[in-house]
Amino acid sequence: MVTIRDVAKAAGVSVATVSRVLNETGYVHEDTRNTVNEMIKQLNYSPNEVARSLYTKKSRLIGLLLPDITNPFFPLLARGVEDEMRLHDYRLIFGNTDEDAEKEQDYIQTFQQNNVIGLISMTNTLSKKVYQDLSIPVVFLDRTSSGYPSVFADGKEGGKLAAMEMVKRGSKRITLIKGPGHLQTAVDRFQGALEVLSTSDINFYVMSTTSFSFKDAETWAKDLFEKYPDTDGVIASNDIVATAVIHEALRIGKKIPEEVQVIGFDDVPHSSLLFPPLSTIRQPAYEMGKEAAQLLIKLMKNEKLQKKNIQLPVTFINRDTTRKVDEHV
Amino acid sequence: MVTIRDVAKAAGVSVATVSRVLNETGYVHEDTRNTVNEMIKQLNYSPNEVARSLYTKKSRLIGLLLPDITNPFFPLLARGVEDEMRLHDYRLIFGNTDEDAEKEQDYIQTFQQNNVIGLISMTNTLSKKVYQDLSIPVVFLDRTSSGYPSVFADGKEGGKLAAMEMVKRGSKRITLIKGPGHLQTAVDRFQGALEVLSTSDINFYVMSTTSFSFKDAETWAKDLFEKYPDTDGVIASNDIVATAVIHEALRIGKKIPEEVQVIGFDDVPHSSLLFPPLSTIRQPAYEMGKEAAQLLIKLMKNEKLQKKNIQLPVTFINRDTTRKVDEHV
Repeated sequence: MVTIRDVAKAAGVSVATVSRVLNETGYVHEDTRNTVNEMIKQLNYSPNEVARSLYTKKSRLIGLLLPDITNPFFPLLARGVEDEMRLHDYRLIFGNTDEDAEKEQDYIQTFQQNNVIGLISMTNTLSKKVYQDLSIPVVFLDRTSSGYPSVFADGKEGGKLAAMEMVKRGSKRITLIKGPGHLQTAVDRFQGALEVLSTSDINFYVMSTTSFSFKDAETWAKDLFEKYPDTDGVIASNDIVATAVIHEALRIGKKIPEEVQVIGFDDVPHSSLLFPPLSTIRQPAYEMGKEAAQLLIKLMKNEKLQKKNIQLPVTFINRDTTRKVDEHV
Repeated sequence: MVTIRDVAKAAGVSVATVSRVLNETGYVHEDTRNTVNEMIKQLNYSPNEVARSLYTKKSRLIGLLLPDITNPFFPLLARGVEDEMRLHDYRLIFGNTDEDAEKEQDYIQTFQQNNVIGLISMTNTLSKKVYQDLSIPVVFLDRTSSGYPSVFADGKEGGKLAAMEMVKRGSKRITLIKGPGHLQTAVDRFQGALEVLSTSDINFYVMSTTSFSFKDAETWAKDLFEKYPDTDGVIASNDIVATAVIHEALRIGKKIPEEVQVIGFDDVPHSSLLFPPLSTIRQPAYEMGKEAAQLLIKLMKNEKLQKKNIQLPVTFINRDTTRKVDEHV
């Protein structure tokens, strides 16, 4: 392996000079700088990041906290973050917290111990105190925490959209599935839908659930049709739950969308491949990830933020689990 | 932040002594060791891993290379690796390579620069040389590379199983979808199925494909029913492709499983929630991840491996895209 000493020797300068060139600190004559850079290139020298981060107190590592890597929505966000960070030559450490406060704490500690210089968190089960004690910039993604910059989709508008589309397409006995109460994103989309439904003249049921997991979704779907067998429209808390609702409706012989309409939330990769393909409220996950990365990069460079909170718009994706507008009469 | 000096002062010993206790090097009297450990606990001291890894040349960081974080199979493997590593107090850095040799190379360099002490790779687009040049233990997961320990499922047996079940359940014009030729796992399952089909008296078509992605799967599925409209059984290259095949078959009005049977490969989380729920060959992904982690831990501790290659069994999951055995006559 090529060391800083090899570079110094080849350039005919001291190790300290090479170090000054690498870290862009102190005065180095332009000719010397060019020679050193030339030798770095020729010898294909890559500085040891650990030693370097200890010396300059700066690494190029970013910590990324995911709540659940097996929920297909979060890898989409992560890909956006990753691609943007790569463009700017930063690298990511991932931590998967399972929305477990202890795991979240552990990963934050690991990140600190490895001198990460910024953190993007898609989870916030911990008290704000923990994040305040960190001496690095933090951006929340798909989560909010007052006082911190964050990037999220317009969940309330998404909920409204879902309810309006459902009503417009003729459902009369709608079931509104309320997602986990501890997640602001779930609460927002629920409240948006509630607002529209409660000011309409439509009957509706509210069904509370506590998770977004594949395992539980099947149970919620079974419960739903047992408790509300006459429901003719389901506003699901996300696409995973919607997938299970479609499954259960078809299993018990209901026609989709003729007898039951279904609208999901997220637009995860498998949603368009379901049959019937799922109508859903699309969150621009990849773009959200990129925005969060850009926000963090600005913070790390001490640039002034024009906006601390970035809210991206959601869109209704009209596939085949909802009726055409003129079909409902 | 509590430093090593604070611990030394509180314990009434030198910094060097605390360092010896932390790194388990050199002689420290038992009483002293106990006092130091007690102070570490009381002060809630956590050593800076960067400084520590520079001193001891050992970090607790493991690198994990994934080919595609948005393919739901890989997060299942990653969860197995992560849970096992956490049990042994190691932490993971993830890299997502998109099966792109340049990205794979970049991540390996990042891992090295951050002094990872072991690598688990689920991708191998690079030449073996790159891995040979690393001075750390490497384990392949869901991939093989001659000379390296690896953990994988019995793909050939999986392919055989899929073909046998398809034939047993009465399909007469089977389409066998061949996955990407550069992936040994895809080739294995193809060859297993081919072996069974070619020794049966069944007509079959082989359709070549080049990826496992959601985006392409829809195209393969359309092609399939255009080219082979009379096919009555599809052995898909994985569950994503099977999802698209079910979608397309239902879209063009075929009954599943009465007119077309479908068998997938992997058993990803959404497969049981499809309608009809997907019959598939299950790979024990979570267990594979745990096994790979255990193998790497043994290598890092210089323990002798009893087996260098661990092959886990696959199972046929009989859901509703295949007929009951006595229904086929």
